[in-house]
Amino acid sequence: MGQGVDRGSSALPLRNSRRSLLRLGAVVAGGAMLGKAERAAGETSPPGEPEWSQTIGAGVVDRPYGKPSEFEKDVIRRDVPWLTASKESSVSFTPLQSLNGIITPNGLFFERFHAGRVDVDPRQHRLLIHGLVERPLVLTMDDIMRFPSVSRIHFIECPANGGMEWREAQLNSLQFTHGMIGCAEWTGVALSTLLGEVGLKKEAKWVMVEGADAARMNRSLPLAKCLDDCLIVYGQNGEALRPEQGYPLRILVPGWEGNVSVKWLRRIKVGDAPWYSREETSKYTELMPDGKARGFTWVNEAKSVITFPCPEKPVAAPGLYEIRGLAWSGHGKIKQVDVSYDGGVNWQTAQLHEPILSKALTRFALPWRWGGKPALLQSRAIDDTGFVQPTIAQLRQVRGTNPIYHNNSIQTWQVKPDGSVFDVQLG
Amino acid sequence: MGQGVDRGSSALPLRNSRRSLLRLGAVVAGGAMLGKAERAAGETSPPGEPEWSQTIGAGVVDRPYGKPSEFEKDVIRRDVPWLTASKESSVSFTPLQSLNGIITPNGLFFERFHAGRVDVDPRQHRLLIHGLVERPLVLTMDDIMRFPSVSRIHFIECPANGGMEWREAQLNSLQFTHGMIGCAEWTGVALSTLLGEVGLKKEAKWVMVEGADAARMNRSLPLAKCLDDCLIVYGQNGEALRPEQGYPLRILVPGWEGNVSVKWLRRIKVGDAPWYSREETSKYTELMPDGKARGFTWVNEAKSVITFPCPEKPVAAPGLYEIRGLAWSGHGKIKQVDVSYDGGVNWQTAQLHEPILSKALTRFALPWRWGGKPALLQSRAIDDTGFVQPTIAQLRQVRGTNPIYHNNSIQTWQVKPDGSVFDVQLG
Repeated sequence: MGQGVDRGSSALPLRNSRRSLLRLGAVVAGGAMLGKAERAAGETSPPGEPEWSQTIGAGVVDRPYGKPSEFEKDVIRRDVPWLTASKESSVSFTPLQSLNGIITPNGLFFERFHAGRVDVDPRQHRLLIHGLVERPLVLTMDDIMRFPSVSRIHFIECPANGGMEWREAQLNSLQFTHGMIGCAEWTGVALSTLLGEVGLKKEAKWVMVEGADAARMNRSLPLAKCLDDCLIVYGQNGEALRPEQGYPLRILVPGWEGNVSVKWLRRIKVGDAPWYSREETSKYTELMPDGKARGFTWVNEAKSVITFPCPEKPVAAPGLYEIRGLAWSGHGKIKQVDVSYDGGVNWQTAQLHEPILSKALTRFALPWRWGGKPALLQSRAIDDTGFVQPTIAQLRQVRGTNPIYHNNSIQTWQVKPDGSVFDVQLG
Repeated sequence: MGQGVDRGSSALPLRNSRRSLLRLGAVVAGGAMLGKAERAAGETSPPGEPEWSQTIGAGVVDRPYGKPSEFEKDVIRRDVPWLTASKESSVSFTPLQSLNGIITPNGLFFERFHAGRVDVDPRQHRLLIHGLVERPLVLTMDDIMRFPSVSRIHFIECPANGGMEWREAQLNSLQFTHGMIGCAEWTGVALSTLLGEVGLKKEAKWVMVEGADAARMNRSLPLAKCLDDCLIVYGQNGEALRPEQGYPLRILVPGWEGNVSVKWLRRIKVGDAPWYSREETSKYTELMPDGKARGFTWVNEAKSVITFPCPEKPVAAPGLYEIRGLAWSGHGKIKQVDVSYDGGVNWQTAQLHEPILSKALTRFALPWRWGGKPALLQSRAIDDTGFVQPTIAQLRQVRGTNPIYHNNSIQTWQVKPDGSVFDVQLG
């Protein structure tokens, strides 16, 4: 269940020091540890030193492409076995409970496939740009990489993130309630540059993007968004895109629901109307209480979640902790995050960590002294448009209980007296 | 030689379009390609479609911890076999020629060991803080992670980066001339927080940090730097530190030569004078022409390098390209980067890409129309203190030819008429 490794607990009894920040850690008693450490700085290894301090380790390029420590083997992407009929049209979740900062390492970035992960040969891959353009083009990867490059840090979130909790709290896991998100530094070409290269006809209003996988995943995008901030990307956190992220080429549509950032991108067609493709009609729409469906609900609105504590990372014992979490908005930057210890009755403003980037994950933190009583932890994001993250009750009031997508509601973590943490929804 | 994959070249003949930005890419002729792509959007796969468009790919969590594409198998860290007597006290280099943006993925971050890469058990690992402190402490990893966390994007560069080129240009490779550097988002605790926890005695002026590997790598740091911006880090690009980066704990000394960012950190001792340890006396000092040695030369001063083109990434043919590169300074932010096409006679100011962060890699770029004539490409960084990156001749004038460390000189890439690129030094 994605607990990650238990890193051990305090080795020596705690002393109650008035000046201690956290009242943790073992105060060195009688100089015994000091003596041992002093010896360790010398030339000989005293008995009792750990093995790794007494032996020469592995040489360079033992792992030409590096891997995590074996002690981190439980920090992996995981799927929910009952969620989908097949593993090829499914999702694996980012282990947010074990991550720090705002960058999601490529090996842990969530996956969402419609016809499985394909391994595309970049030498054979082509991108066709056509439709209402002056000069249709077929580009190789070499061609694409010659255009002026742009790098930006953005999140990608599947709109189904939290979708299993529209009706009730049924997952007891941060990885599964919020793990369909990742944030990376993406590198590529501005779509506006490529559209400038082919020349838009004056009737141009919409753009269709299509993947090279067997699903031929395709979506319609308004031209204004394409010219604003969309990138055609080949790089992810410095290196080439990973196969599960669309290697060698995808579109990145910053702040919008993940599926429009089509992977294994092979075609861009310019038109004057949307295509109403399968994945924007039968899927990725939301049935409202009045029987109508919301469509083209692209933007992932302001959202946040507390990543510590959480079901996978309970509280060890009463004491001082740091509440940590992530906030993001598809509309721009995060302006403020509030935290509640009592299920939304009282709120305190958390500290936001730099850098605060548009359409990127933002870290927040707040000290929390836990006395051992039950608590209901919540976080609430506000973005720079003034949008305030809603409660699940507010969302249901407007959208009912049919939808799967765009659940950006406030998450409640219930902390029990033993420190265990549960996924709950308040009435 | 770290060439990475050849991503193929233009599939169809180029048309000379007046409005084309780069005059590249294949213009679709006669609608043949169009027709094929239109069919591809339908339900049936026409013959001739690539295999990956006709078959279902791998399911989710096929790779619970992800890996790069097989087509990227040459993008790896590499060592120089003749450089060191053993692989356990050696270095592997980051393949800068294949990277984008400013983040170095953990699997490609350069390694430098003094006694090999050790695999430390985080449950057994302890950090001792003692010396001129009020309350010496032994901390477990759990303890350390409870302190207020900080994440920052910083580079780490070995001061020997470029050291093999102090006397002559002998390597013909960006990976080997500049690859002892990486940049990541690091997460940990401010060292000032930990020193506040133990309480400094008034005589405290220096801090010694010591690793848990068999080298017991240790260095002396002035207290002011420790209180300014040093971090005790456990996270790297979101996940846990990699073993080769000091898992589970290292110190990060932003902007200073890499070896002071001691890995597998087990001990912090506070004192009133430096320790003059092996690695700050017999090593990591520089013999000057007058017979004296420069010591404690911690800061990596402003430096830059062009990453495209470079020996591993030659120019394909005359045409319009984008010169790309990286700049950094251990003193703060990069203010400006200039590029020369003629070996330093004329300079043009490059565009800096956001984000421009203190003591982090910064990307620069500049369009370059290459007509097929010989060129001498150079980049020159200026940081926000006004420091200007020197030429190798200027460095030698001041420091002679004995040193290995802190070669931050301007790199010259010679472009030959056939587009090949060579590492040269100008007289």
